[in-house]
Amino acid sequence: MKILDRVNTPQDVKGLSKDEMELLAQDIREVIINKVNLIGGHLGPDLGIVEATIALHYVFNSPVDKFIFDVSHQCYPHKMLTGRKLGFINPLEHPEISGYSNPAESEHDHFVIGHTSTSVTLAAGMAKARDLKGEKSNIIALIGDGSLSGGEAFEGLNNASVLNSNMIIIVNDNEMSIAENQGGLYKNLALLRETNGTAENNVFTAMGFDYYYVEEGNNVEKLIEVFEEVKDTDHPTVVHIHTLKGKGYKPAEEDKETYHWQLPGFLDKKGNAPAVETYDSLTTDYIIRKKEEGLPIVAISPATPGATGFSKEFRKQLGKHYTDVGIAEQHAVGYASGIARNGGKAVLGVLSSFIQRSYDQLSQDLALNNSPATILVYWGSISNADMTHLQTFDIPLISNIPNIVYLAPANKEEYLAMLDWSVKQNEYPVAIRVPFGELVSTGIEDTTDYSILNKYKVEEPGEQVAILGLGNFQKLAKEVKQELLNKLGINATLINPRFITGVDAELLDSLKQNHKVVITLEDGVLDGGFGEKISRYYGNSDMKVLNYGGKKEFTDRMPLETLYKRYRLTKELITEDTAKIIM
Amino acid sequence: MKILDRVNTPQDVKGLSKDEMELLAQDIREVIINKVNLIGGHLGPDLGIVEATIALHYVFNSPVDKFIFDVSHQCYPHKMLTGRKLGFINPLEHPEISGYSNPAESEHDHFVIGHTSTSVTLAAGMAKARDLKGEKSNIIALIGDGSLSGGEAFEGLNNASVLNSNMIIIVNDNEMSIAENQGGLYKNLALLRETNGTAENNVFTAMGFDYYYVEEGNNVEKLIEVFEEVKDTDHPTVVHIHTLKGKGYKPAEEDKETYHWQLPGFLDKKGNAPAVETYDSLTTDYIIRKKEEGLPIVAISPATPGATGFSKEFRKQLGKHYTDVGIAEQHAVGYASGIARNGGKAVLGVLSSFIQRSYDQLSQDLALNNSPATILVYWGSISNADMTHLQTFDIPLISNIPNIVYLAPANKEEYLAMLDWSVKQNEYPVAIRVPFGELVSTGIEDTTDYSILNKYKVEEPGEQVAILGLGNFQKLAKEVKQELLNKLGINATLINPRFITGVDAELLDSLKQNHKVVITLEDGVLDGGFGEKISRYYGNSDMKVLNYGGKKEFTDRMPLETLYKRYRLTKELITEDTAKIIM
Repeated sequence: MKILDRVNTPQDVKGLSKDEMELLAQDIREVIINKVNLIGGHLGPDLGIVEATIALHYVFNSPVDKFIFDVSHQCYPHKMLTGRKLGFINPLEHPEISGYSNPAESEHDHFVIGHTSTSVTLAAGMAKARDLKGEKSNIIALIGDGSLSGGEAFEGLNNASVLNSNMIIIVNDNEMSIAENQGGLYKNLALLRETNGTAENNVFTAMGFDYYYVEEGNNVEKLIEVFEEVKDTDHPTVVHIHTLKGKGYKPAEEDKETYHWQLPGFLDKKGNAPAVETYDSLTTDYIIRKKEEGLPIVAISPATPGATGFSKEFRKQLGKHYTDVGIAEQHAVGYASGIARNGGKAVLGVLSSFIQRSYDQLSQDLALNNSPATILVYWGSISNADMTHLQTFDIPLISNIPNIVYLAPANKEEYLAMLDWSVKQNEYPVAIRVPFGELVSTGIEDTTDYSILNKYKVEEPGEQVAILGLGNFQKLAKEVKQELLNKLGINATLINPRFITGVDAELLDSLKQNHKVVITLEDGVLDGGFGEKISRYYGNSDMKVLNYGGKKEFTDRMPLETLYKRYRLTKELITEDTAKIIM
Repeated sequence: MKILDRVNTPQDVKGLSKDEMELLAQDIREVIINKVNLIGGHLGPDLGIVEATIALHYVFNSPVDKFIFDVSHQCYPHKMLTGRKLGFINPLEHPEISGYSNPAESEHDHFVIGHTSTSVTLAAGMAKARDLKGEKSNIIALIGDGSLSGGEAFEGLNNASVLNSNMIIIVNDNEMSIAENQGGLYKNLALLRETNGTAENNVFTAMGFDYYYVEEGNNVEKLIEVFEEVKDTDHPTVVHIHTLKGKGYKPAEEDKETYHWQLPGFLDKKGNAPAVETYDSLTTDYIIRKKEEGLPIVAISPATPGATGFSKEFRKQLGKHYTDVGIAEQHAVGYASGIARNGGKAVLGVLSSFIQRSYDQLSQDLALNNSPATILVYWGSISNADMTHLQTFDIPLISNIPNIVYLAPANKEEYLAMLDWSVKQNEYPVAIRVPFGELVSTGIEDTTDYSILNKYKVEEPGEQVAILGLGNFQKLAKEVKQELLNKLGINATLINPRFITGVDAELLDSLKQNHKVVITLEDGVLDGGFGEKISRYYGNSDMKVLNYGGKKEFTDRMPLETLYKRYRLTKELITEDTAKIIM
């Protein structure tokens, strides 16, 4: 019988011997590897934190004592020890338990978290409320060394250190971010590891924290010893633990970046997938070419190079033309602006969900300074992702900032033409919404001059109805056009707007002559987005406008089909709506 | 003859003796005090940095060597030494020179900057581009100790420290933010001051910077000595200088917070302004009352307590119920969420221009977690401010995030009712756009139940035209109603939406019966804002919609009258537009 079989709650952990806890760790690892192999998920971070999680539940008293996991992609062991192990063991129950902490699942979770560097901040707030209410409990933030590079983590540390009451910060140092760590902070962490935590020069003690170091961060017994020492402390305390990312699964120990996160079936995967052309490969090939042509081009990643196709090989080829700034999107945007203002060519690759972390830098550092840098926004779309990683909000976020030219290519040729224009020009900050999904190619080179701003492209002229299909949704627009013809006998005009950030007044006016309805389609939230600007433009006219896109809501791992139906984003439903107006 | 009379360019500084430089410092101080007394501006930061600025221009070779000022509210002396002294001396030329750095004014300025904690980041980008282009120059960021509390500053330091080439960061330590510094970082700065920079525990050396300390940061000679030593360094270097904020003007030296920034006429000001009721005082009185009633309420400021009326007296009264988190808006929002999730009542006061710095925290930490905290957004309006401090973008920023209830009170009674509702309820994250401008009072207590979301208030029923005047612009809506009556004989319906984040579908549908035109008025940028949602709603109907608000643009110290005219935000122009449609 496995130890895990008889562990359902934190209380059960407290009854185990040290040897049993070691066995429990093995059981947990096995389950994690199997679940990730079946449905995908985070592997390395969870394998590394198993012993620490067991030790925490052994020493502390959750949920009175509160654990706040940074990013929370390392909370699988915690979930398994707090009544949710079947969500990992039983494939039928897999979908019920998300990959991030969630108060709706358990009283042992306190926040929905999925973005980085927030745990110390959230914990500081919880500690403050506890103190004002006169309660007693341990508030414990668990933050990885990688997450420390985000500015909010520093802001949190700066304030947590003066709280003057109980607050425990576990720094889980596995010497890795998703890729390698970047920055001077990591010199200090290395020094602390080398000196077994005794170095005088210590960023944590410098800020006023009490400080403990545990070299054997995967040794339950050593962890328990220190956790017991700091339990019920009356002042802010850092426990720096040195763990092995991916521990217990050799390939993950050896290639920490690749096994940070895995798709289903990794156990059987042999060799690499065949090389196919994707928007990622188009991008990296382009950047390499420009570097080789001698351009002072810099590809920048905020610690997510894998997600944007900035592979190890690509990074190596670029050399000093590549900067990983750490999980620091604010700095990434400002840094790009600095490069641009001094004559360099900055190309920042960032996911839609994470560009959210730099609104003020987009506005002040980039747009206000008209810095001609290029921001590539990946994965922007209505999304079946976890609610913490939706990619739905970048259009309202970026497109309402003055000066930025935000472009939505609908195919390979447009994307390449826009990227090339953006890198070569020196007038505008440009963001490009990299098409999401399979590569679409027209086979015809795009020779458009994108310096003529806000010029939409009429793909196929028609009458009565005009369909504006933005970026990813140009495909849907074509389908709607066909459906309107089939069902209503309407030969609709098909338009590819390409510019998100401006209205083509001339074209919109010309449509008034022989069109009654304009349909807008955008692959993102409607509120504050592209379609509303078209509605506003036509507000004083007789033109009817139908805006289609996502609803303003946080959805959680919702199938796209469900969402498209809910948002009436199908050719049938759109045709139905159009018929009501026009027939 | 004054020394300043013969100094026009950095070259002129290089010819001065040390004694002449001391005299020049006096001249500069005199001019700054006089200009600020005439037109208002930043006082303490500029008086403190005079000697350092002279020394920088003496040692370095601007604009080949590049100075990047953090916030840049301390760049007055720099401007005076780079060809712009008449903008400080001659009242007629005052308006030509802004209070922040601006490349349009001079080749010695490299960025438009007005928000905090960006200088190291921008400088790192410039250094990167310099290196890739194979050029030589010194890149110098000047950052105050207060600005170090912002996360982007840390992100910048983390990366600048591994640049492996020339980069000089001057930490101007005057022991103050706008108010007192907050956080553990300042323990380390204090230690470094106490030990004349020799303490082993040093956050800068911990991150890998070379480090120099200058205790006499207002001594030109000592500064020059060290600047000459670090000039042309081949590695990232921090020069920590200890200066006196407000130096040379005794009241500013003694009350650093008050004299950080001053309104015109401060030299003659006697005593305090008489106490009048304002939205600020309503807020602070309310918070004090709740604290006295025993609520676990926490007022939070991101280092701008003065701007939101959180006076010294108020902060003292609140005691542990007040937290200044430093210039750390990200942390401020997350901290509020943490407090709320643990049963506390968080009230964050933040300017519209600075709430921009926390979009991701509003989305992830607050909205996704449905944390019932209260965010008070101050000064939100179309603005005659400097382009770096516009208050125009908060509506698109906040209102397109799911779950947040963003409210726009139009008068005192609504504001108090909304604030009270927000603090008492436990369901929603709430933001309130504190009315900007003079207090408006109806004299009648507002007993609305704001938990019934998105219910607009019909102030005066009418027909043909409905005017939706949001928040500050309810006043303009009333004027438009009167003008429509006077000029067109139309008895328009007057509506006070109060909710920014949702559409009152029932009311909007009912208007279709006897209205042809709906007018929306909002005191902020139109793009992504409130009015567009009304346009979208009516897109499939015969209702005409006219949206009024600001254009998507960065304006710079533009008189409101000019802006209102440009945006057609006057009763006459709106009536003219309406007549075109309806008559």
